Amino acid sequence: MRYEEFTIEGRNAVLEAFRSGKTIDKLFVAEGNEDGSIQTIIREAKKNDVIINFVKRERLDQISKTKKHQGVIAYAAAYKYASVEDILENAANKQEPPFIIILDNIEDPHNLGAIIRTANLAGAHGVIIPKRRAVGLTATVARTSAGALNFTPVAKVTNISKTIEELKKQGLWFVCADMGGNSMYDLDLKGPIGLVIGNEGEGVSRLVRENCDYVASIPMHGDIDSLNASVATGVLAFEIVRQRMN
Amino acid sequence: MRYEEFTIEGRNAVLEAFRSGKTIDKLFVAEGNEDGSIQTIIREAKKNDVIINFVKRERLDQISKTKKHQGVIAYAAAYKYASVEDILENAANKQEPPFIIILDNIEDPHNLGAIIRTANLAGAHGVIIPKRRAVGLTATVARTSAGALNFTPVAKVTNISKTIEELKKQGLWFVCADMGGNSMYDLDLKGPIGLVIGNEGEGVSRLVRENCDYVASIPMHGDIDSLNASVATGVLAFEIVRQRMN
Repeated sequence: MRYEEFTIEGRNAVLEAFRSGKTIDKLFVAEGNEDGSIQTIIREAKKNDVIINFVKRERLDQISKTKKHQGVIAYAAAYKYASVEDILENAANKQEPPFIIILDNIEDPHNLGAIIRTANLAGAHGVIIPKRRAVGLTATVARTSAGALNFTPVAKVTNISKTIEELKKQGLWFVCADMGGNSMYDLDLKGPIGLVIGNEGEGVSRLVRENCDYVASIPMHGDIDSLNASVATGVLAFEIVRQRMN
Repeated sequence: MRYEEFTIEGRNAVLEAFRSGKTIDKLFVAEGNEDGSIQTIIREAKKNDVIINFVKRERLDQISKTKKHQGVIAYAAAYKYASVEDILENAANKQEPPFIIILDNIEDPHNLGAIIRTANLAGAHGVIIPKRRAVGLTATVARTSAGALNFTPVAKVTNISKTIEELKKQGLWFVCADMGGNSMYDLDLKGPIGLVIGNEGEGVSRLVRENCDYVASIPMHGDIDSLNASVATGVLAFEIVRQRMN
């Protein structure tokens, strides 16, 4: 696998990237560009379900490394994403009940990297992240994962709630990390499980939370609100490990 | 408390800072400077147990914001450090057996901040860091602590091993996080405890490890070596919380 994040600038280069099947994470297009080749790029982006950001031309000038962006810059993924099926297959191969960590909009690449690292060491079979808003598999993520990205599959899905519903049909239970739920020590966290972690600032979104079977809380004994997202994931993931070991 | 990290540049300003009792974290002095006022500053630094770094003048030019450093730049702590006694007093006030987190050379400010945040929420009474090498209470640490720095005392000591020995006399047990120890689930982690976390790359130093009563390991189920230091701290700290709750 490759460790670099890279940007692709200019109309031909971006179009070429789409046509060769490169995984594009994000596309920035200068506002007010309506002409032919940009339209083709936008069409390709939509076909590949890539998020398109329309920004001021000055913003592109800032991002640009080549200073020849021609109104379009793409961010390509440094790592290939897995599918949800790959993750389930990983569990099946190990003859273990599936244990998946689902991230509802983690934005900080250091957190995402640390969570993939934790997922690997807690024996989780994969990590699922959303396409929209959240951070993707950038170079920082790869570095902070300390190599775990080479072993733990990460899938990117369009709709976290829908993915949860589909995985429920496969027998998984979903527990979402949030305040005001049951203490994680009082919940049965064995069996096929999906652990849902919310955004750093906002927590788990309402719809996703409603889709979960349980809300699990870490018992807090301090003055402030919440743990760092990657620390909370670690604490919960290893409570699952503890219960599975018994 | 104040949230900013700040540098103090120039001979008079640095000397003034020492004399007014400001907490200086680090002192950079240009190599080959032997004249009067620099000698006075060095004397003050030694008196206050401040680490002195002799560096090339070009390095100082790089660090300098004012470009008028006169061969000396000091880094001042944005936060006031507590003493080990303050931490013990914090436990006594809450009528709880002391629970202290000792960091043997954490270098990443994000990790230090996340650990202080975790310490607060796990109900630890304080954090102890070493004077030498490790990161101090910078603006990044304050920010990543998410406010915990306002509640959880952090003490800075010259010699971690010596501090451990002194705390043992006060009845504390020390458990060090490392590979190859007993599973944390098999250890009795109740009672007055010091949890020792090692450096991100090198782990706990030999001398400190030998001074601990137990080595506690997090059961690992993956392909890579170790958890992120702040995640590991969280997992261990909340195992202590779990055992204390029972």
